[in-house]
Amino acid sequence: MIYLDYAAATPVSAKALDAMKPYFSEQFFNPSAAYLPAKKVRADYEEAKNKIAHCIGTKGTDLVMTSGATEANNLAFSILHGNAKCLVLNTEHDSVLKVADIYNHELIKVDKTGLIDLKDFKNKLTDDVELVSIALANNEIGTIQPIAEIASIIRESRLDRLKRGVKIPLYLHSDASQAMNLIDISVARMGVDLLTINSAKVYGPKGVGALYVSHDVKLKPYLHGGGQENGLRSGTENVAGVIGFAAAFTDAKEHINGNRKKYTEMVYLLQEKLSHNSIIPQFLGNVKHKLNNFCSISYPGLDAERIIFKLEEEGIYVSTGAACAASKGQKSQTLTAIGLADEEINGSLRITLGTQTTKEDIEEFAAKLNEIINAEATRIGLKQENK
Amino acid sequence: MIYLDYAAATPVSAKALDAMKPYFSEQFFNPSAAYLPAKKVRADYEEAKNKIAHCIGTKGTDLVMTSGATEANNLAFSILHGNAKCLVLNTEHDSVLKVADIYNHELIKVDKTGLIDLKDFKNKLTDDVELVSIALANNEIGTIQPIAEIASIIRESRLDRLKRGVKIPLYLHSDASQAMNLIDISVARMGVDLLTINSAKVYGPKGVGALYVSHDVKLKPYLHGGGQENGLRSGTENVAGVIGFAAAFTDAKEHINGNRKKYTEMVYLLQEKLSHNSIIPQFLGNVKHKLNNFCSISYPGLDAERIIFKLEEEGIYVSTGAACAASKGQKSQTLTAIGLADEEINGSLRITLGTQTTKEDIEEFAAKLNEIINAEATRIGLKQENK
Repeated sequence: MIYLDYAAATPVSAKALDAMKPYFSEQFFNPSAAYLPAKKVRADYEEAKNKIAHCIGTKGTDLVMTSGATEANNLAFSILHGNAKCLVLNTEHDSVLKVADIYNHELIKVDKTGLIDLKDFKNKLTDDVELVSIALANNEIGTIQPIAEIASIIRESRLDRLKRGVKIPLYLHSDASQAMNLIDISVARMGVDLLTINSAKVYGPKGVGALYVSHDVKLKPYLHGGGQENGLRSGTENVAGVIGFAAAFTDAKEHINGNRKKYTEMVYLLQEKLSHNSIIPQFLGNVKHKLNNFCSISYPGLDAERIIFKLEEEGIYVSTGAACAASKGQKSQTLTAIGLADEEINGSLRITLGTQTTKEDIEEFAAKLNEIINAEATRIGLKQENK
Repeated sequence: MIYLDYAAATPVSAKALDAMKPYFSEQFFNPSAAYLPAKKVRADYEEAKNKIAHCIGTKGTDLVMTSGATEANNLAFSILHGNAKCLVLNTEHDSVLKVADIYNHELIKVDKTGLIDLKDFKNKLTDDVELVSIALANNEIGTIQPIAEIASIIRESRLDRLKRGVKIPLYLHSDASQAMNLIDISVARMGVDLLTINSAKVYGPKGVGALYVSHDVKLKPYLHGGGQENGLRSGTENVAGVIGFAAAFTDAKEHINGNRKKYTEMVYLLQEKLSHNSIIPQFLGNVKHKLNNFCSISYPGLDAERIIFKLEEEGIYVSTGAACAASKGQKSQTLTAIGLADEEINGSLRITLGTQTTKEDIEEFAAKLNEIINAEATRIGLKQENK
């Protein structure tokens, strides 16, 4: 099996699973209970939150643990008051776009590499905007946004509002889920007020995530009940899940530099191999500002669905777009937003590398893909046209 | 260690943990991905939902999987329109009471055994009520409510509304979390429209629950994003968690009769032992309608906190009330609702038995507790008074 869809799901690392195990059995106590073994579980839970927080340069009490990135993204938008507006990039994940849909919102444009159009952003940053949500890295083509630059524009706008007596606050949220394995995240350096992180993208268990909330932001209580997470998100803590997230994220963080180098070399090798074929793909995304483990490509005129099934027969697994969008037969919003034509979108593949990917995997994958592409091109008579 | 706080948390059963393990490692795929191994994970996930649903007499497509009972309870209340009213029992868990607080609501009274006051309920069931929420069994004293009878009153009220042309719908929600190990739940027999279930109470992993939603109820999409759970609750599925829940619940369901018998005998033994002491506790709850593993008691005039710490020194773990309420030093709402005086509440203990409890545990616990009670009573001069 050659798995090249690490952007869709990552296996739980051995370290994370080992860390979790005791909290299913001996350490199963309810962290809110009064007796000593339960207080030990509470302490371990808080320590795990601190470890997760440390990975993004903050402390555990600034995190609200959630059931994943979708809940964290939804929670971020709950700070919006009345009819206040939010701005989101038009290449955001559905868990941002669909929640923005229920509020007063506008979409910010991107260029054809998926980078934010800063001019468009500045134009739309009117006084009624309360929240701006821009993912650190796109989940379909891996383009990394200049969040620090965006944050600085927002800071200027805030000062300007203050001078002019405009009372509406302005916050910056970023979904960092896809970037956690490759970018050394610091909420201070990024200048964000809210940040979404996700265990499932970083070799931790699914069903666990968190929203970083800066001190300036007044979050309303979300789930109501036992008052966990400082009253902001009730529900008995998913202790094992949070412990696993902490172990996984800490491990991923330690390997960022090594993995960047490894993935860069492998993606270069892959691009080389795919470029030495009679049909050459378009390489999507931004060459300079791209997650190192992403290789998104398009073979205009070919049917990516067919290619994926043919790869599957060889035990190779890649994706057409975000897994959740792909399963519903929706057209990729990112590829539409960067201005691809339908035939480019239909011929697109997302190849994402992970910890278990080897050079041999890449070589075998490239050879098989070239073979399949050539056969498909011949079948539909594309080869002749392109030559 | 003698753990007698199974109402607060249960260890994950070996069966559940074994069932989960493959879904952390080899079967880690995103169930929304298009390739075969991911589709296998999707099928396993749906099968697990069907197993869970089967345990409550329904099918998987009627369940919305959540991050636990708190989210499921909150979700149930989201069906309320505008200013429509909800009725909740005044002994509900905080995850019902606190969410009811944000809506137009009234509390239904209970008698001194914790049973619903049906007369009060009928009086309050006015035409503006859209939702009634009554837990199947109370989490502090284990009193079981006559849900089928309540459902029949609601059906009559619905018919009456229909006749009189009242357009407001009326739904019955029940939080069954605490009852899942002891009551053979069937949504049809109960006559509920919405039912909350919780993995963490049934020897499954924490952070997993579900809301049963009958076909009559139009649930609004809750978390917005990838459209999982039929568009009603977005977010990548917690596959391992749901698989674990299914294994745990199936196992618990098979042992209901055996466990009822076992717990009934043990609680009887415990009551016997505690009744053969110079200071005898009050036994709380309803003798006839009570979860078999519950033994809630009160030693009026004694300090339950001190008793718990003394028990803790002996490696025995019991609780004062719901773990989440206890941790915040709140006065038990259930014990207040059943009309206990402050000194009765302050002297109350919740003892809840579980799969690993033995007859020897009960005997040792009873002996230690009697000893501690006598010492405490002597210390504060209570013994003399009571004699």
